[in-house]
Amino acid sequence: MKREVINIIKIGGKTIDHEEKLDRFLNSFSRVPGQKILIHGGGILANQIGEKMGVVTKFHEGRRITNAETLELVTMVYGGLINKKIVAKLQSQNVNAIGLSGADANLLTAEKRVVKTIDYGFAGDIQKVNNDLLQNLLSQNLTPVICPITHDGKGQLLNTNGDTIAMTIACALQSQFEVNLWLCFDKKGVLLDIKDEESIIPQLNPSTYAELLSKSLIHEGMKPKLENAFRALESGVSKIRIGSADDIDLAIANEKTGTLICA
Amino acid sequence: MKREVINIIKIGGKTIDHEEKLDRFLNSFSRVPGQKILIHGGGILANQIGEKMGVVTKFHEGRRITNAETLELVTMVYGGLINKKIVAKLQSQNVNAIGLSGADANLLTAEKRVVKTIDYGFAGDIQKVNNDLLQNLLSQNLTPVICPITHDGKGQLLNTNGDTIAMTIACALQSQFEVNLWLCFDKKGVLLDIKDEESIIPQLNPSTYAELLSKSLIHEGMKPKLENAFRALESGVSKIRIGSADDIDLAIANEKTGTLICA
Repeated sequence: MKREVINIIKIGGKTIDHEEKLDRFLNSFSRVPGQKILIHGGGILANQIGEKMGVVTKFHEGRRITNAETLELVTMVYGGLINKKIVAKLQSQNVNAIGLSGADANLLTAEKRVVKTIDYGFAGDIQKVNNDLLQNLLSQNLTPVICPITHDGKGQLLNTNGDTIAMTIACALQSQFEVNLWLCFDKKGVLLDIKDEESIIPQLNPSTYAELLSKSLIHEGMKPKLENAFRALESGVSKIRIGSADDIDLAIANEKTGTLICA
Repeated sequence: MKREVINIIKIGGKTIDHEEKLDRFLNSFSRVPGQKILIHGGGILANQIGEKMGVVTKFHEGRRITNAETLELVTMVYGGLINKKIVAKLQSQNVNAIGLSGADANLLTAEKRVVKTIDYGFAGDIQKVNNDLLQNLLSQNLTPVICPITHDGKGQLLNTNGDTIAMTIACALQSQFEVNLWLCFDKKGVLLDIKDEESIIPQLNPSTYAELLSKSLIHEGMKPKLENAFRALESGVSKIRIGSADDIDLAIANEKTGTLICA
């Protein structure tokens, strides 16, 4: 039996930071046929607003360290400003978008990350995806627009990486859907040489990835994204691509852009 | 045929501004039986964060004048920080809350207020409530938690008074439900003497209200709230009360608190 296709698309900061880029992406996204879910990150906007407010954010290996002040900041910026702006823009393009955090309707339950060497503060590791809710919303032709905020079910909001949310939702839905997962960022794909924008690796499987890793040819900042991609692959997600958010509709139509993650 | 009861409760800034007060209210709210909707305002939190960010907000007759900067501020604070905090807290108390702005799933379409003498900026006057959506969510035992942000359907978010949202939703649902509308604030009811907290007017009908108005016995700040209450009355909303957010579950049980708005 042919299962229904769902496109799960994650966009990052660089797409969100520029109004024009975001508009172009949302325009493209609105043309993606069938069921779809958008997950967005935050980008420099949270940092800029944080600076104005005097909130200083620390990072460790590209991951934000979330103290109480930073959690309030990202809840405001991701859950409020960015999420509602995206939803309103999509509504104007006939996409019946509904903005959600992980707390809303108990979409994503997470656990505060256990402190090992680094205390990530209010960082949440996802424990459970509310599959029934997602399927229910999708069956009503709603398009979930998900911000990277989760909760622990005990009243605490948590900050969770957007790529990880996209991956986890892809894994959760893959038993019911043929899932296409798109992890978009500001490059056209995983680059062999970070200084050469055209050095896109067309496909990566676990062994070629391991090989590149062993030769230190994978940029540090790419590792979390690739780890998420390979975890989705292991869970049976049909198609996973890492690439640019530009012209996502064309990418979905011909599927020959970016880096394909395959077995 | 006996229709199902729904309690629509609006809380204002004073309840939100104090963590302890908010917790007590949400605790109380979680015990309200049956279907329910919570609408929240913003309070001084938006002003405080605005101050930190250097955003100056102007008011006219208690209503915020929303320029572009202020709109971003309230979208962040109302739609993000306050809304998600409330949702997470309710989730921890077994209320399956879902936070929504008017843009989400096209819940509330509004029109940018036409400039007469005062330019309210990005202030939205509600045109349409998405009744089907609300009924659908309620039928799934979800509790909508609505922030005072609407949209115009053309991509523009707008700022709308929370009391007005509560009233409009009450009116929209009154044909399907027996609606109890609670407009809560920091007083125990409409006061005859603003300096005497115990001078609660037990009930007001259009003619007693007109009489008090003519004698200038209605405080300026109370007028918008009362106008909303009387508009709900005209639309056939079953019960409307103006009173304190404290112990709302007990208030709903005995219905003898605050000011009853009646025909």
